[in-house]
Amino acid sequence: MQELTSKKINLATKNMDKYEELRNILDNFDLDLRVVDLKGTEIQAFSVLSVAEQSAKEISTRTDEAFIVEDSGVYINSLYGFPGPYSAFVYKTIGLGGIVRLLKNREDKTAEFHSAIVYGDKGKVVKSFIGICEGNISTNLQGDQGFGYDPIFTPKGKNKTFAEMSLSEKNQISHRSKAARTFAEWLEKNQ
Amino acid sequence: MQELTSKKINLATKNMDKYEELRNILDNFDLDLRVVDLKGTEIQAFSVLSVAEQSAKEISTRTDEAFIVEDSGVYINSLYGFPGPYSAFVYKTIGLGGIVRLLKNREDKTAEFHSAIVYGDKGKVVKSFIGICEGNISTNLQGDQGFGYDPIFTPKGKNKTFAEMSLSEKNQISHRSKAARTFAEWLEKNQ
Repeated sequence: MQELTSKKINLATKNMDKYEELRNILDNFDLDLRVVDLKGTEIQAFSVLSVAEQSAKEISTRTDEAFIVEDSGVYINSLYGFPGPYSAFVYKTIGLGGIVRLLKNREDKTAEFHSAIVYGDKGKVVKSFIGICEGNISTNLQGDQGFGYDPIFTPKGKNKTFAEMSLSEKNQISHRSKAARTFAEWLEKNQ
Repeated sequence: MQELTSKKINLATKNMDKYEELRNILDNFDLDLRVVDLKGTEIQAFSVLSVAEQSAKEISTRTDEAFIVEDSGVYINSLYGFPGPYSAFVYKTIGLGGIVRLLKNREDKTAEFHSAIVYGDKGKVVKSFIGICEGNISTNLQGDQGFGYDPIFTPKGKNKTFAEMSLSEKNQISHRSKAARTFAEWLEKNQ
């Protein structure tokens, strides 16, 4: 009968890969994640946290149900944080090939994947959570799991990209899983 | 005594190069352009028009004076419109060197510079104006006039970049000057 008591949380996204990753984590906390079409305006800002917070603020005026917004981006150190908050746009335009080209012959290929989750409930933004995963950009595409930048991102201490990992393997270390666990643990204690 | 009758317009920007270009055009229409610190939130959107309109909407709630917002970006065809609305961020991160690298060995180097001007007055957004300048991205930097992408943008039919032109030369053909003239001509007829 446990299912009847699980807390419903709406995820404002159209990205089903993102949904699957987050649900895989939140299932362990008895949280019932559902996708809703509640996208808020995304602002131009350097941090994905600012983008997610502004979006959550807007969504909170339109629903009284519990919801989360998640925004993520990959920040490449030698490119001063590019593509960062515009990772989705850059993926659709210059693509992974463009990123590889920009990094060719550069010594420093370190990068950080950032995820920000903002939680709202009862028409208010409640709290924000951050997850960061350090790693390196590889200059050739490897693996076919995951999505987005996964084929070129090798987490620190690993010798394969996110795209060469199973979902559960990626979810042990990824930026998004860290933010999601921090959120779920906080919610368990505070609600 | 003409100065006493010129209409004051506030330009919401911190970019003095942009201000100088716009003022150079609007001076001819007896419009007195002033810089104000009234920046609205910039949203993530593909068109600079959407970005400027949203920003103007926000600014219109904070002032009753006449104002304009101008947003611009360079859309590179073979890169699916990159960097487009994120031209300023891309300039600060991968820079012109990054753009040149992305286009090396590509046959199609055509691009469009877009400018959107949104005019507001008496606490309302009134009308939007667009200017487009077609051209080519050159794979080496040329000239030291202008700002931003000017050293790599050669307007169609010209054999030099914006950065190799004087302000008045650039203002005869640029995207921004076209939007500004369309605005000023409309204002002359309608106010």
